[in-house]
Amino acid sequence: MAEAFALRCLGCGREYPAWSVDYFCPHCGFPGGSLEIVYDLDAPPHPFPNHANFSLWRYEALLPVNLRFAPPLRAGSTPLYAAPQLAKALGVRILWLKDDTLQPTSSCKDRGTAVAVAAARKLGRHGLCCASTGNAAASLAGFAAASAMPTYIFVPKTAPLPKIAQLQAFGARVFRVDGTYEQAFSLALAASDKFGWYNRSDGLNPMVVEGNKTVSFEIWEELGDVPDAVVVAVGDGAVIAGVCKGFLELAQAGLVKRVPKVFGVQAAGAAPLAQAFHRFRGGKPLLPAEGPATTIADSICVGKPAAVVPAVKYVAKTHGDYVTVNDAELIAASLELARKAGIFAEPSGAAPLAGLRRLLEEGLVSQNDRVVLIITGSGLKAPQAVLGHLPEPPIIPPDIQDLSEVIKACS
Amino acid sequence: MAEAFALRCLGCGREYPAWSVDYFCPHCGFPGGSLEIVYDLDAPPHPFPNHANFSLWRYEALLPVNLRFAPPLRAGSTPLYAAPQLAKALGVRILWLKDDTLQPTSSCKDRGTAVAVAAARKLGRHGLCCASTGNAAASLAGFAAASAMPTYIFVPKTAPLPKIAQLQAFGARVFRVDGTYEQAFSLALAASDKFGWYNRSDGLNPMVVEGNKTVSFEIWEELGDVPDAVVVAVGDGAVIAGVCKGFLELAQAGLVKRVPKVFGVQAAGAAPLAQAFHRFRGGKPLLPAEGPATTIADSICVGKPAAVVPAVKYVAKTHGDYVTVNDAELIAASLELARKAGIFAEPSGAAPLAGLRRLLEEGLVSQNDRVVLIITGSGLKAPQAVLGHLPEPPIIPPDIQDLSEVIKACS
Repeated sequence: MAEAFALRCLGCGREYPAWSVDYFCPHCGFPGGSLEIVYDLDAPPHPFPNHANFSLWRYEALLPVNLRFAPPLRAGSTPLYAAPQLAKALGVRILWLKDDTLQPTSSCKDRGTAVAVAAARKLGRHGLCCASTGNAAASLAGFAAASAMPTYIFVPKTAPLPKIAQLQAFGARVFRVDGTYEQAFSLALAASDKFGWYNRSDGLNPMVVEGNKTVSFEIWEELGDVPDAVVVAVGDGAVIAGVCKGFLELAQAGLVKRVPKVFGVQAAGAAPLAQAFHRFRGGKPLLPAEGPATTIADSICVGKPAAVVPAVKYVAKTHGDYVTVNDAELIAASLELARKAGIFAEPSGAAPLAGLRRLLEEGLVSQNDRVVLIITGSGLKAPQAVLGHLPEPPIIPPDIQDLSEVIKACS
Repeated sequence: MAEAFALRCLGCGREYPAWSVDYFCPHCGFPGGSLEIVYDLDAPPHPFPNHANFSLWRYEALLPVNLRFAPPLRAGSTPLYAAPQLAKALGVRILWLKDDTLQPTSSCKDRGTAVAVAAARKLGRHGLCCASTGNAAASLAGFAAASAMPTYIFVPKTAPLPKIAQLQAFGARVFRVDGTYEQAFSLALAASDKFGWYNRSDGLNPMVVEGNKTVSFEIWEELGDVPDAVVVAVGDGAVIAGVCKGFLELAQAGLVKRVPKVFGVQAAGAAPLAQAFHRFRGGKPLLPAEGPATTIADSICVGKPAAVVPAVKYVAKTHGDYVTVNDAELIAASLELARKAGIFAEPSGAAPLAGLRRLLEEGLVSQNDRVVLIITGSGLKAPQAVLGHLPEPPIIPPDIQDLSEVIKACS
């Protein structure tokens, strides 16, 4: 079954045979989220999952590329934890955390990268590229290194050098573009066209959403069912598009009877998708979204999200919604997640916890719903965003009596 | 079979029933590596592995604590990758990398922590403690948070505040001791005695080595056999002790016919165990080891290793050895590992790669040996140690012609 798919334009609906187009519709060039990959789901995929494989390739039967093209790093199969301490703090009955930070480069982006790099290998491309400074670029650089493929990363010249250095450590060629992020994105696209590199940029490459959707397959497999609600942070929209698509495909294939509501959480200072979703729900046409972008959660600080159409339409199909949270809530959520679940996430990774509080307040999620929060990126990627807010611990003499006094005073 | 064990003093050899002693021999108080846990291995353990469990608890039949006491985070079951690019660069036939960074707190220490926290739960202890600033403390703090157990960490007052902040994020109570590391270690021990906390300190708690040994079970299970040589970085000695013990137990239980040679790699500036090993091989008695400690590889910067006896004697039993590498080699190895395998490790994590070069030069490992390098800690824990050495990438205008010129000039 793998590789039996068509490419459908999210704008005009035209379909193209598998592997005939890389990114945009050749007819209308619709820029709101590239092409979507569609399968014939009248018959359930088989084997699904393939228990012999311990990675996202266990879902090969619903992936566009064969396992034999998979890059050598293990993406997917991250743990799902019950979170009783957090459930109690939030007053919900059942809460799980999908720790998607436990991947080769410590973010959920490794799912999309794994499938995109497999596609590049299948297509015989001799180079990879993307425009990003964040988790997607680190992920591409790591998987490319393991696959012995040269990689070219385009970043705006304002990108912080420590983030760039990690890409260089993986051997990626980094170009700092004297312009905006949009200009870096356009240059990456022109370069992939001119040099034949395969472009992994989110919202451009339909393979990325295919990898991202496997997180939903895992949640379904681990629970033996789907939950009532799934909450995930949203930047450019490619991750939430994948989360929704995974559950929608499970339903189409007859493997589940219903889909969970999928909720997107954006930072209040960078919420163009939340705004686009609410305009669309209000009956307005869905246009490319753009807005200001300021938040400490750099992984979701996106002013012009590339995957606007699937990020809005797929969420609407699941009967989900979008909420926003401010930076103080993001920092508090990051600390609460560490303290009550033992997961140290970057602010965007903890955003679903802050978002769930908002969803409960607004009545969009009820206390009896069974909820999964997807934790998308490790706190080690940007520790100071959170850790700068903690007090210095006390200095004590090396004496058990003094220690006893300190402990007595604090308890 | 689980929990059927005895505690044996590494100094005087006296044995004690399971759970009757926590740390040191009550008879001789031997300080060179606490007690060792011994099993009756006349009959092979069963089920081993338990395929229903995807964590180190699949080896419950050779662990001292039952799965039902396991803390909620998933330790173990990390990937083993073939590394053809590195094999080629080093001129060895077969090379694998065990990526032990893919654990809940991004280091191999999570294995020992998982079993130690399980033991604390079994014993009904109401608090956890350790002396460390590094990966062991972060690991304990994370697992304690997930287990809703209070944790007390003792660090010398010179410990860097960013490392401490991560412990605080997990809700650990951190005490900065106005004294040396040894004084912090002693205060932690006095505090665990006085307050009934369970002490996870490496080289003190025998449960830690039991968790650490599961990395060898995984290597055996994934390969369907044991390799010829296994290389791992060494700081206080508890990790290499576990690596050796795992293979030795597989042989005792009749599951493998031979044990691989286990090689320890120390930083040249902090090599007391390498020195102790070579003195011991030379026929001198094995004494507590001590020496200077200066290296950029902070996770193995240990001047007075606590687990000296098992770290020396177990390695000798496997017919392994110790080598040292300097800081420049550690930085180069970290970059080479990222570029040729897609794994970004901290300098200590990449030390086995530098060590393997030395082992090949010295003829201790041959080019036909099948070798496993254990990668013990993520590079995200201390990125500047490596990334500070990379050049700034070029700034280019947002123009495909200019890009073409730059690429032409560099290729």
